[in-house]
Amino acid sequence: MNQTEVEQYALATLPSLYQYLKLPSISAQNQGITETADWLINQFSKLGAKRVEKWHDQGGNPIVFAEFEGQVDRTVLFYNHYDVQPPEPVAEWQTDPFEPTVRDGKLFARGTCDDKGELMSRLTLIKYFQEHGGLPVNLKFFVEGEEEIGSPHVDQSVIAHATDLAADVCIWEGGGKDEEENFQVTCGLKGIVSFDLHVQTAAVDLHSSLASYADNAAWRLVQALASLRGADNRVRVAGFYDTIESLGETGQKAVARLTFNDAEVKRNYGLRRPFVYADPKSELINGTTMSINGLSAGYEGNGVKTIIPKEAHAKLDCRLVPDQEPEDIVKLIRNQLDRNGFEDVNVEFLLGERAFRTDLDSPFVQLNMTIAQEVYGKAHTKLVPNMAGGGPAKQFVDSLNVPIVMVGTHYAGSHPHSPNENIRLADYAKGTYFLGLLLTRYAR
Amino acid sequence: MNQTEVEQYALATLPSLYQYLKLPSISAQNQGITETADWLINQFSKLGAKRVEKWHDQGGNPIVFAEFEGQVDRTVLFYNHYDVQPPEPVAEWQTDPFEPTVRDGKLFARGTCDDKGELMSRLTLIKYFQEHGGLPVNLKFFVEGEEEIGSPHVDQSVIAHATDLAADVCIWEGGGKDEEENFQVTCGLKGIVSFDLHVQTAAVDLHSSLASYADNAAWRLVQALASLRGADNRVRVAGFYDTIESLGETGQKAVARLTFNDAEVKRNYGLRRPFVYADPKSELINGTTMSINGLSAGYEGNGVKTIIPKEAHAKLDCRLVPDQEPEDIVKLIRNQLDRNGFEDVNVEFLLGERAFRTDLDSPFVQLNMTIAQEVYGKAHTKLVPNMAGGGPAKQFVDSLNVPIVMVGTHYAGSHPHSPNENIRLADYAKGTYFLGLLLTRYAR
Repeated sequence: MNQTEVEQYALATLPSLYQYLKLPSISAQNQGITETADWLINQFSKLGAKRVEKWHDQGGNPIVFAEFEGQVDRTVLFYNHYDVQPPEPVAEWQTDPFEPTVRDGKLFARGTCDDKGELMSRLTLIKYFQEHGGLPVNLKFFVEGEEEIGSPHVDQSVIAHATDLAADVCIWEGGGKDEEENFQVTCGLKGIVSFDLHVQTAAVDLHSSLASYADNAAWRLVQALASLRGADNRVRVAGFYDTIESLGETGQKAVARLTFNDAEVKRNYGLRRPFVYADPKSELINGTTMSINGLSAGYEGNGVKTIIPKEAHAKLDCRLVPDQEPEDIVKLIRNQLDRNGFEDVNVEFLLGERAFRTDLDSPFVQLNMTIAQEVYGKAHTKLVPNMAGGGPAKQFVDSLNVPIVMVGTHYAGSHPHSPNENIRLADYAKGTYFLGLLLTRYAR
Repeated sequence: MNQTEVEQYALATLPSLYQYLKLPSISAQNQGITETADWLINQFSKLGAKRVEKWHDQGGNPIVFAEFEGQVDRTVLFYNHYDVQPPEPVAEWQTDPFEPTVRDGKLFARGTCDDKGELMSRLTLIKYFQEHGGLPVNLKFFVEGEEEIGSPHVDQSVIAHATDLAADVCIWEGGGKDEEENFQVTCGLKGIVSFDLHVQTAAVDLHSSLASYADNAAWRLVQALASLRGADNRVRVAGFYDTIESLGETGQKAVARLTFNDAEVKRNYGLRRPFVYADPKSELINGTTMSINGLSAGYEGNGVKTIIPKEAHAKLDCRLVPDQEPEDIVKLIRNQLDRNGFEDVNVEFLLGERAFRTDLDSPFVQLNMTIAQEVYGKAHTKLVPNMAGGGPAKQFVDSLNVPIVMVGTHYAGSHPHSPNENIRLADYAKGTYFLGLLLTRYAR
């Protein structure tokens, strides 16, 4: 494979795929879903897929499935999603979020990074291979339309279609370069569990002069929450940390090689407080968290309203690592609240997504690292055991028994979910070459 | 004074004062203020006051001042307010809130209890005295129009008009019967200080995957709040309780004679939790509180939004007793937060009202008790050192050096601030007689 040729091919064919970025497929607002799924069906058909299907059988927005035959009987499964975040606040975009625009070597549009750009690179590569002797291996595509609203139908779809999806390895969405321009081979995702706390102490809000005897739902909530976290910011829930898998030797070495720029991070987000833990790098990979996402009780307006709130709410999430199970974590929290004397504080499970981490020593991870080092340079290639965020990947691991890696085309300034989302053309071109080389070598 | 005659007189003349209840003098909505003040001016003039004035000089809604000359040169000052709470929710009223209606021996209208009814009783009594040989003592009236919005101009008005208001004793608004039909002679009010806590940890809300290093404003607020209150629900602020005056022997005896029906109170408000302190009776009189009035941070809607809130707010109040100074209390809280390591949590003073308690052994309090026992019976007369709520009374004490008592016409079912506010006609009649007898005896 000639690097220059593939990169030029990727850039030359890019505008022919702009239509994908122009379609406002906003799952949260139920916009443009059908036409975007249909556009994909059409693209896969034109590229000569041996199977193209729209899966509706588990409900929700359709999943687009496509299958291509390669020269060697090994199968790579790609996970992507065709839905995007809403563009709001639109006024902060320098150009129309659904009008792809190149400026300063960057392609701006909603979805360029997360994650239409990556699928565009994959489609281009199919075309390139077909024009240059054929696909080296079999390819399958699973492109869902509900990732930005929590992928509520993915697990069931993977279970129902495990035979259709059978593959040897899986390449996920996401991946790219970190703040210091290191290319990352990422091998896992954190899990998450979201839950609400709610407590009610009275039938009505009370005049605050009655605080001489009446309990206060807001105080009750504050005390319950405070009992779940120590002064060291660690979670004080018996069993919470017990099931966490060790990173292993390869993982620990990989973490040691990662970089983390304290000053840059603080400046970026305007952080006013010291870091909550001493070693952010390790925490981002194999640490767990408990975040309050929101608090609400009583009077929240300006001025004074001297009441005792009858009820109080908190919304929380925990970011989890292998092998913490979301449902189990909520049960542990329930038990701990009981033990702490807060039987009256209700815990409501909202949603859970399980963490996964591909075996860092697996041949496919090692192949990715080898090729990344070749394309991006050894010093600028990093093995990332898992991302700090999540995604609906665990069911793929469970049902298909595949290693999963994330190797993509974004960079630290891509602004996913924010105004002026973009990728750099150079990253897009090189990322397409990287993937082409990976598929070619994987066929050997 | 003939009790039956005075009571019948009060009831017979009541409808002639209905116009006062029909005027919707809602300070919070800036409605009907001028016409109500003018109606009062007109009433006082018709009753032959030697001075009637509208005071505008300190700003805000006008204060109506009136002065009457009596046969003995002792002066009783009355505090009332002509503004009322908004009638909302109007749908829950059985009859129009501004159309006085008698039903089952009760007079329903917004303000009957709080506190137009009491002023009506006082106006009637002037008329009665004038038709029966003249007023026994000098009377002064201070009727403000901003009590329901926190009396923001009272302190300055009392200071500016201290000479005009000079008196020997003061009879406040409020007072009446408790849940067990005991007539209360109340001698003080609690103070209050309202303040906000605010903490900001970042320039923007963060993705909750960053909780691996970034602090969370909601956690910070929860931990700061939790540090201010112990498991025993007592305030953990150094110096907070230090300046509290003892109740003294008379006060302690009075508290011991008060009744408090645990089950009834719990049922009334639908309380789900045990009382926060063991002795509600004592706490209501000489206990202090710290209430969270409201909490607010991050995402408060339904479903999931996995963010770290950049900021968090709490609104609080403390109910205070003599001699806790509102400003000092906020300073102590500020200092304690600093000592607890929460220098970054801002404290904003919103408003303060000082507590006061008239000397329970003073001759005027004793005179009230004697006459109450005569009119209501010894077993059904209670000395209440102070109410659990507040009011703008302390400046009257400071500037005029008067004992203040609260002896009124409401009962436990009066529903002040709520739909179907009412007083019982029998209470109105007897309360008018009580006051007449008090003024007559005070002249001796």
